[in-house]
Amino acid sequence: MTTADHTRAAASAPTPSTSTTMKALVYHGPGKRAWEDEPRPAIQDPGDAVVRITTSTICGTDLHILKGDVPSVTDGRILGHEGIGVVEHVGTGVSGFHVGDKVIISCITACLKCDFCRRSMYSHCRHGGWVLGNTIDGTQAEYARIPHADGSLHPFPADGDEEAMVMLSDILPTGFECGVLNGQVKPGDTVAIVGAGPIGLAALLTAQFYSPAAIVMIDLDDKRLAVAKTFGATTLINSTDGRAADRVMALTEGAGVDVAIEAVGLPATFAICQAIVAAGGRLANVGVHGKPVELHLEKLWDRNIAITTRLVDTVTTPMLLKVVRSGKLQPSKLVTHRFAMHDIMKAYDTFGNGAQEGALKVILTNGGPR
Amino acid sequence: MTTADHTRAAASAPTPSTSTTMKALVYHGPGKRAWEDEPRPAIQDPGDAVVRITTSTICGTDLHILKGDVPSVTDGRILGHEGIGVVEHVGTGVSGFHVGDKVIISCITACLKCDFCRRSMYSHCRHGGWVLGNTIDGTQAEYARIPHADGSLHPFPADGDEEAMVMLSDILPTGFECGVLNGQVKPGDTVAIVGAGPIGLAALLTAQFYSPAAIVMIDLDDKRLAVAKTFGATTLINSTDGRAADRVMALTEGAGVDVAIEAVGLPATFAICQAIVAAGGRLANVGVHGKPVELHLEKLWDRNIAITTRLVDTVTTPMLLKVVRSGKLQPSKLVTHRFAMHDIMKAYDTFGNGAQEGALKVILTNGGPR
Amino acid sequence: MTTADHTRAAASAPTPSTSTTMKALVYHGPGKRAWEDEPRPAIQDPGDAVVRITTSTICGTDLHILKGDVPSVTDGRILGHEGIGVVEHVGTGVSGFHVGDKVIISCITACLKCDFCRRSMYSHCRHGGWVLGNTIDGTQAEYARIPHADGSLHPFPADGDEEAMVMLSDILPTGFECGVLNGQVKPGDTVAIVGAGPIGLAALLTAQFYSPAAIVMIDLDDKRLAVAKTFGATTLINSTDGRAADRVMALTEGAGVDVAIEAVGLPATFAICQAIVAAGGRLANVGVHGKPVELHLEKLWDRNIAITTRLVDTVTTPMLLKVVRSGKLQPSKLVTHRFAMHDIMKAYDTFGNGAQEGALKVILTNGGPR
Amino acid sequence: MTTADHTRAAASAPTPSTSTTMKALVYHGPGKRAWEDEPRPAIQDPGDAVVRITTSTICGTDLHILKGDVPSVTDGRILGHEGIGVVEHVGTGVSGFHVGDKVIISCITACLKCDFCRRSMYSHCRHGGWVLGNTIDGTQAEYARIPHADGSLHPFPADGDEEAMVMLSDILPTGFECGVLNGQVKPGDTVAIVGAGPIGLAALLTAQFYSPAAIVMIDLDDKRLAVAKTFGATTLINSTDGRAADRVMALTEGAGVDVAIEAVGLPATFAICQAIVAAGGRLANVGVHGKPVELHLEKLWDRNIAITTRLVDTVTTPMLLKVVRSGKLQPSKLVTHRFAMHDIMKAYDTFGNGAQEGALKVILTNGGPR
Repeated sequence: MTTADHTRAAASAPTPSTSTTMKALVYHGPGKRAWEDEPRPAIQDPGDAVVRITTSTICGTDLHILKGDVPSVTDGRILGHEGIGVVEHVGTGVSGFHVGDKVIISCITACLKCDFCRRSMYSHCRHGGWVLGNTIDGTQAEYARIPHADGSLHPFPADGDEEAMVMLSDILPTGFECGVLNGQVKPGDTVAIVGAGPIGLAALLTAQFYSPAAIVMIDLDDKRLAVAKTFGATTLINSTDGRAADRVMALTEGAGVDVAIEAVGLPATFAICQAIVAAGGRLANVGVHGKPVELHLEKLWDRNIAITTRLVDTVTTPMLLKVVRSGKLQPSKLVTHRFAMHDIMKAYDTFGNGAQEGALKVILTNGGPR
Repeated sequence: MTTADHTRAAASAPTPSTSTTMKALVYHGPGKRAWEDEPRPAIQDPGDAVVRITTSTICGTDLHILKGDVPSVTDGRILGHEGIGVVEHVGTGVSGFHVGDKVIISCITACLKCDFCRRSMYSHCRHGGWVLGNTIDGTQAEYARIPHADGSLHPFPADGDEEAMVMLSDILPTGFECGVLNGQVKPGDTVAIVGAGPIGLAALLTAQFYSPAAIVMIDLDDKRLAVAKTFGATTLINSTDGRAADRVMALTEGAGVDVAIEAVGLPATFAICQAIVAAGGRLANVGVHGKPVELHLEKLWDRNIAITTRLVDTVTTPMLLKVVRSGKLQPSKLVTHRFAMHDIMKAYDTFGNGAQEGALKVILTNGGPR
Repeated sequence: MTTADHTRAAASAPTPSTSTTMKALVYHGPGKRAWEDEPRPAIQDPGDAVVRITTSTICGTDLHILKGDVPSVTDGRILGHEGIGVVEHVGTGVSGFHVGDKVIISCITACLKCDFCRRSMYSHCRHGGWVLGNTIDGTQAEYARIPHADGSLHPFPADGDEEAMVMLSDILPTGFECGVLNGQVKPGDTVAIVGAGPIGLAALLTAQFYSPAAIVMIDLDDKRLAVAKTFGATTLINSTDGRAADRVMALTEGAGVDVAIEAVGLPATFAICQAIVAAGGRLANVGVHGKPVELHLEKLWDRNIAITTRLVDTVTTPMLLKVVRSGKLQPSKLVTHRFAMHDIMKAYDTFGNGAQEGALKVILTNGGPR
Repeated sequence: MTTADHTRAAASAPTPSTSTTMKALVYHGPGKRAWEDEPRPAIQDPGDAVVRITTSTICGTDLHILKGDVPSVTDGRILGHEGIGVVEHVGTGVSGFHVGDKVIISCITACLKCDFCRRSMYSHCRHGGWVLGNTIDGTQAEYARIPHADGSLHPFPADGDEEAMVMLSDILPTGFECGVLNGQVKPGDTVAIVGAGPIGLAALLTAQFYSPAAIVMIDLDDKRLAVAKTFGATTLINSTDGRAADRVMALTEGAGVDVAIEAVGLPATFAICQAIVAAGGRLANVGVHGKPVELHLEKLWDRNIAITTRLVDTVTTPMLLKVVRSGKLQPSKLVTHRFAMHDIMKAYDTFGNGAQEGALKVILTNGGPR
C-alpha cells in the first residue's frame, strides 16, 4: 500500500483530501492500458455525485474494449463500470444521496426522466445508458463522477458485504434481466445456458429464483462446468466435440429446452441455442455479438418461439438487493481473485487469462479498512 | 352447376345422399392439380366428424404446396384447410356437434388433450396441428373428414355470413395471433406491416383492435397498398426502390416502429423488419420462410427487442367470432373473387396471379342456397 | 418578486405582468369557496416550475372537497388539479421544460426517483402523488407552482386543442388506468360501466381502444345514458328500479360481464358490480368510496374473479396523448360548458348541478388568446 | 358386472375381484358418515374411467360437508375428491389412459372442450368442475368412477411416492394457484399467509418457487406455526391477541406486505389481510367463505391493490409434478397420520381434531402392497 493509499484511507472520514489527482486505469488504444495519474473528478452538473471507490471489478466487456472492439471508447478513457464507494460530493439536484453515503454504482446511468427511463428501459436512457468507462470516465480509479446520481446509485445496505454487493453493479442484473427474465424461466422448466463464464453463472444463480426442474450448462471448459455444478446446474455438457445440441435433444427426448440462454456472443453458441429451443420456448440472448448470425427461420417460423435481446436496464437491482439480503442468493461465490486496486494491471492479466487462471470475478479494493 | 350439385343441394336436408363419391381438388405432385372424383370420407375415429362443405377458399400455402415446397403433402392429397359446412356424420366421441350443425372448420386440428393443447398451442397438437390438406385430405371438396371435431370446429352463428366466417378458418387468426398478438400491438403504437397480401391485410384489420396510432403498410404493389389504405393503413410505402427501411426511419424520426410484422416470408422482407424495429420493439414473423435469414445481432444484441415466430393456434377464433359479430371487424372485405367449387381450377389460376388479378381471397361455393 | 424574477417573466410572456398577486378559487371549509386574491406562486425547490394557467376544469373530487369529505384539504387551499398552461419560471433542477413551454399539468405529481415512481406507481410517490389542490395549492387560479415538474408536466403538442388536452390531466388517465387497464378489457369482451358521469364516460371512451364486443352503461339518469349512447355504449340500463343487475344477467344469458367498472363510489353501485361480474371476470373500482362495502365472498370465493382499486398513476398520459393526436380519441366530446376563469363561482354552480344542467366537463379559460 | 367386464378386470389387475360391491365412506346428512357397502362404480359415459383407489386423503372441505355447509352434497353421497389409483376400466372415448395405468386423480373434473376449459378455467367446466365427492360419488372408497378421464387424471410417475403424489390431487394446486399464482409472488417479495393449516402450508411450500425474501405465517396455533417454521416461514405470528395486523405493519415499517394470502375463510382472517396488504399489493383469497365480509373500500380505493378469488383449476398439476420430481418440493412433509382405508372413521376423528392431534394431511391406504 502506498502513502497515497494511506492518505486516502484516512480521508474516508468526512475530512476531505486536498489532493487534486488520483490514480486510475486508463485505456490508450487497442491493447494498451496504464495505471496512471488523472485529475480527480468534480461535479459538473446538478445531478452528479462524485464517489470515492472502495471496491471495483473487471468485466468481460473491459476485455472487449481493450481488444479495440468498442469504438465508442477512446484513448484516455478511464475504464470500469462497476463499483462500491462512498459519496464524496453531490450536485444541488441530487436528492436521494448525501455526502458520506455508501453506495452501489450501477453500470447503467439513468436520468429517470426520458421516455425510455419512464418505460423502465434505462439501458436506452437518452441522457445516460452505458456511459461509465465507455463515453465518460469509469470506476477503475480512486474516484468516479456519476451523472444522474439519483437514478444511477443504490444505497449500500448496512449489513452488506462489498464483494457480494459489487456483483449488483452489472453481472447479476445482466444475467437476470437479459437471461432469466427475458427467458421467462418458470417453475418446472428445463433451462440451458450456453457459456459458463461469469455472466452465464449469474444467469445460473438467478434462474434458480424460479425453481426450474433442470438447468443444463454448456461450455468448452470442464473447470467452469465444475463450478456451474456447485452453483446448481443439474447437467453439464462440454461442447468441445460439437455435439452439445444433439446431447440436449437426447436429454430432453427430442423436445428441446423451454429456455435457452446465450451467454457467449458467437455465431456458434447462438446456433446451439437455435437448435435446442423447444416449440413454444424462449431464446434469450445475453452475449455481446460482433457479427451477424444465421437464423434458421426455415425451421423456426412455425415453432412458436421468441428470441430476445437486451442490454441490462438494472431496473431489478433493488429487487436483487432484497434477495441477496434475504440470503437466497450469494453472489460472492463468483469471486475467485482479489487484488489491491493499485495492482489492477496484474488483475487484468489474471482476468484476461480467465480459463487458465480459473478466474471468474476479480475484486479490486482501494486500500484501507472496509 | 351439374346434376350432382343439384342433388347435393337437396341433401342439405337431413336426408343423406346415397352417393359414395364426391368431387375434390387433388394434388398430383409439383405443378399438378385436378378436380376429380374421390371417395366420400367416412368416420374413422370416435372423435371424427364428416362435414359437407358449403364454402371454402384458397390459401397462399396451397400455392406453396403446388410449387412442391411442402414435402409432407404427397400425390393424391385433397387440398384445402379452410371451410364452412354442415355436419353430416359424427363419431361416438363427439359431444359438441351434431348432424345438421353448421360449422366453421379450423385450419388447425386440436385434440385438446395433449400437453401442447393444454398450453393453448394447438398448432403443435400431438395428434393434430395443421393436418387438413397436408397430411390428410382437406376441404377443397364436397365433403371433408375432420378429426378431433370437438377441438377443430366452431359453431356457425345464426346471423353469420359464410364469406365472412370462412376467414375465421385461417387467415384472421393467423394475422391476429402471429402478427398482432405476438407483436403485442398497443394503443398509440406505430406498427409496420411488410406485405399487403391477404395475411398482411388480416394483420392490418386485426391490429386495429388495439388502436395503434399509425400503421405503415409496405409492399411492392401499389394496388395492394391502395387496398391497405381503405383497410385502415395510415402510411403506404412502395418498397420497389429498396428504400423502405430508410423511409420508415425518416417517418419515425430515427426511432423505428414499435411493432414490425413480417407477412411475406423472404430474407429481404425480414431484413426490412430488422432494420426498422425500435429499441424495445417487437418483430413478429408471420411469413413462411424457405431459407435462413441473416440476423444482425451485432446491431440488435443491445436493442431490447423480441423476435417471435408462430404457426397459428386458432385459440382466438371464439374471440374473433365475437368481434366479427359485434360488427367491429368486417372480414368479407378481403373477398375479391367468387367461384363455384367446380370451377376451382379457374379459381386457382386467378388466385395464383393475385397481383395481376387484384385477387385477395377467392370464395369457393358448393352449389345450392346458402 | 425580485428583479431577477421580473426579468424572467418579461422574457417569456407576451404581456408581462408586474403584479405579485393573482386571482384563485380558494376553499374555506365545507361549503365555502371564493374567487379571491392570492400571492403568485414562486419557485421553492430546484425541481419546481411555475405555470401560468390558460385552461383548467373542475373535477368531481373538487365537489367532494367542498362537502368536507377530504380532510387533507384545509382552509385557504387553492383548489384544482387539472390544467393547461405556459411555463413561467423553472427551478435549476428542471431539465425537461423551459420558460415559455406550453404544458399539460398532470393531476399526479411524480418525483420519478422514489421506489413507487420506479415501479410506475406515481400515485404513491413518496414526494408527490395527488397533492395539487389537496395538500398544496392547485390550478384553479392564474398561476400554479408544480413541484417535480419533470415528472408532473407533459409537453403540449403543437397541433393540440386545449379543451381536449386538459382531459389528459386527470379524467382520461383515470378512466383508462383504473377502469380499462385494471379491468383488462380485451377484444370481444362484454363490459359494464356503472356510472355515466365524466369518469364513467372516460372509461367508456378508452375501453373502446380494445374493441370490446359490447359495453353496457348503467346510470340513474337517462340524459347521461343518452350521451353514453353517442359515445359508443351498446346497451343502456337505467338502474332507478333497482333491477340493473338482473337485466345485465338476462342480457348475458346468466353469464355476467367480463369486466365491471365501478365509476360512482357507493355501496349500491359496487353491489351491482359484484352481482354481474362473470366467473373469471374483473371488477375494476374507479369510484372514490367513503364507506366500507359488503363483499359477498360467500358467493365469490370460487368465482375466479379479481377486484382492483387504483388511484390514477398518469403513467399512460404519453400514450393517451398519442392516441388523441392520432384522432382515435376525441376527449373534447366530454366538454359541455365553458366559462372564463373569473366566472368560476358560476362554473361550480353549474357543475355541482351536473344532472340538471347536463354538465359533464366544464372548461375554465383565463383570458387572452389561446 | 358382465362377463366382458370380468375379462377386462382379469387382464389388468393382479388380483381380480369378482365382487360387485365395495366399501366406501358415505355421507348421511349433517354429522353423519358411515363406512359401508356400496355398489362398485361402472363406466357410464364414453369418457369415464373406473379407478381402483390405492391412496386417498381427507380435505378440510370434507369437514365442511359433514357440518352440512355444502348443500350440493346430499344423503348417500360417497365423499372424497383426492386419490391415487389404478385404472380398472375405461370408456371408448378415453384415449390417454389404459387399464392398468397408475394415476393421480384431480379434484377437478375437466371436459377440456367447453369454453371455460379452453380458457384454462377447469374449475368452471360446464360438464365437470368440482363434482367428485360433491355431486357424484368420490374417492374415499375402494373404487371411483372418474368422468372425463382424459382431462381429470394425470399419469403417476414411475419413480413417484403415493403419499407425495396424492397432494397433487388438490392441496398443492390449490395453495399454488389460488394463493401463490393469484398473489403473483415474486423474488424479493414479502408474503404473509394467514392460516397455517394444510392449505396455508401448501401455499407456503409453493410460494418458495419464486424466492420471496420473507414469508410471515399467521395462525392461532403455535404447533402449526412451528411446523410452518420448518417449512420455510421466516416470521411466525400468533394472532390470538388480535394484534397480528399491527405486528405485520411494524415488521414492514408501515409498508405492509406485497402479497397477503387468506387461507382460512373467515371475516376476521380476511380483515387481517385487508389491513396488511401494501399499496400496490395483492390479496389472494384461498379460504372457503360462508358469509360476506366487510371490504374497507374507504381505505383501499386508492391503494392500487388487487383482491382475487379462485376455485383451483388444477391446470398447474403437470408443472407441479415436474417440480416434485425434480426434488424442489417435498409434499410428503404435509403427511402427519396414516390409516388403512377401512379405518377411515377413525381417520376422520383424528383429522377433525386437527389442532389437538397435530394433524395436517391424513393418508388413507387401501390394503395390499403399493
